[in-house]
Amino acid sequence: MKNHTIIFDNPVSISATTTIAGPKEGEGPLHKYFHNIIKDDLLGQKSYELAEIKMHIYAIRNLLNNAHLTQEDIDCIFSGDLLDEIIGSNYTMREYDIPFFGLYNACATFGEALIMGATMISNGVMERVICSTTSHFSTAERQYRNPLELGSQRPPVAQWTVTGAGCSLLSSKENSKIKITSATIGRVVDYGVTDANNMGSAMAPAAMDTIITHLKDTNRDLDYYDLILTGDLGQAGVRMLTKLMKEKNYDLNITNYDDCGVLIFNTEFQKTEQGGSGAACSNLVFNSYIYKQLKLGKLKKVLLVPTGALVSKISSLQGESIPAIAHAIAIEVM
Amino acid sequence: MKNHTIIFDNPVSISATTTIAGPKEGEGPLHKYFHNIIKDDLLGQKSYELAEIKMHIYAIRNLLNNAHLTQEDIDCIFSGDLLDEIIGSNYTMREYDIPFFGLYNACATFGEALIMGATMISNGVMERVICSTTSHFSTAERQYRNPLELGSQRPPVAQWTVTGAGCSLLSSKENSKIKITSATIGRVVDYGVTDANNMGSAMAPAAMDTIITHLKDTNRDLDYYDLILTGDLGQAGVRMLTKLMKEKNYDLNITNYDDCGVLIFNTEFQKTEQGGSGAACSNLVFNSYIYKQLKLGKLKKVLLVPTGALVSKISSLQGESIPAIAHAIAIEVM
Repeated sequence: MKNHTIIFDNPVSISATTTIAGPKEGEGPLHKYFHNIIKDDLLGQKSYELAEIKMHIYAIRNLLNNAHLTQEDIDCIFSGDLLDEIIGSNYTMREYDIPFFGLYNACATFGEALIMGATMISNGVMERVICSTTSHFSTAERQYRNPLELGSQRPPVAQWTVTGAGCSLLSSKENSKIKITSATIGRVVDYGVTDANNMGSAMAPAAMDTIITHLKDTNRDLDYYDLILTGDLGQAGVRMLTKLMKEKNYDLNITNYDDCGVLIFNTEFQKTEQGGSGAACSNLVFNSYIYKQLKLGKLKKVLLVPTGALVSKISSLQGESIPAIAHAIAIEVM
Repeated sequence: MKNHTIIFDNPVSISATTTIAGPKEGEGPLHKYFHNIIKDDLLGQKSYELAEIKMHIYAIRNLLNNAHLTQEDIDCIFSGDLLDEIIGSNYTMREYDIPFFGLYNACATFGEALIMGATMISNGVMERVICSTTSHFSTAERQYRNPLELGSQRPPVAQWTVTGAGCSLLSSKENSKIKITSATIGRVVDYGVTDANNMGSAMAPAAMDTIITHLKDTNRDLDYYDLILTGDLGQAGVRMLTKLMKEKNYDLNITNYDDCGVLIFNTEFQKTEQGGSGAACSNLVFNSYIYKQLKLGKLKKVLLVPTGALVSKISSLQGESIPAIAHAIAIEVM
């Protein structure tokens, strides 16, 4: 470990991925990249929570099927979601006999899972792990903000929680040219934003902190990567990050910089305000579109930076500001 | 990794510990072992949530002070708590510039943190990590069950959420004879218990699954350990586990078996029904009393088995049964 960055001496293969996208996501710009798109976001269940669990169960099953593996082949699963007490992952894992670590770094949880999983594989502690996350617009909206039935108006700074589930298989048994080569673990950053609707602005400082730490720890410039991809900033957050980085003499305008929350929706036509967010946002975009670009060689060095706003309904109601975290994962074709 | 068990080829030193216990815990049988006991469970704060955060901030500070370290010496912190979206840990980590992984396995979170941290140290990925958890009776009670002001009667199967915070320092720099030698990662087990007050019965099957898996993976018998110590089963859960294990031909009655939830309170005089539970329960008992016994050589081989009930208020209200998990950590004097 160099400062906050783990360098994987044995780069870790991302051997397979799978995604299940919600109906709205399936109508967005990345629709042709998703492995599965569901038509009914209740999935025939009695509650949106059960629908989110079902998506997660299916995503793991699909990954195992695609990779011609059974659950006995998996050493551990690193999972999390946005539901209180991550019940989405807990109830999913009831269906599998796989050792389980539950994680929570809000929308950055997918990054956390990749770092933990890659550490296990790179050091030979485990041979195959699954990293998975989910989120669901209808469970998140009513948990963090208002009952859906209220039909509350969404402010222009709001983001749209992505409905979906996705998994990555990290493996030392199934080689892939797409590898995790290093990762920077984020710390909690709080610039004092208190508007629970304005997550992008709260998360941008954390993204800046982690990206700059990563570049310093690895002795790299921004242009080392063909793509720097934040997770959940949305359009306002992207502008905020660009401005903050500029003040520190890092110019994201002359780099290939993008954001999963911006990529996943056509914000103008889909009325998603600033764009997507949620524990499934960076997961869905990476495991479908970006993984495909890496496979095709159109991208060779990507820095994925999932970002998380570490709030709850209670902390918002108690008037607390929004702490945030971002993890950075370097993924390279080699 | 052997089946579900990680064998640490380089056993990992638990170099320092600290605990902060609540007022009720401070009147219990282990009072003389806690490093600090608070008199006011609000700690002068406006809310119990803020009090829980304050305890966590103090616990980390105390650990650093006792070990003569600063936060720059710590590579990463693995933390979690029972609050929705683990805000107890998130807001704590806002006060420190330490890379942070947020964890959630309910009351088994302390075990999860020890396993992840030990993996990082054993493989030379990190040099010093802190594993910490907290819980608070008054935040947990109102979150999972009823508003405190209601004064609801507690059923006889209930357990009492421990108020406290504790930390372990795992280090490759500060040698200790107390070492983590192996660990078994739990899977999610659900025997169909639906009573959110009866956590002990819900968690006992998970404890059984992990203990038996651990013994098989390591080729050991129960009597290899001088003490097998579950985390949060309470008296009813202990009876349930003893019965379940007996059916599988493992006799806990002829072994030195105990439970942190039973040890931490005098259930008869303190009116805590079945005993303690909570993310701080196994943490407080291990980091004070057990660590002291290991230091004195009175215990030499302990299997710590924190257990977690993976529910939320929503899953209980939606009538779901209670999935549970247990992790096992072998701690030996060597």
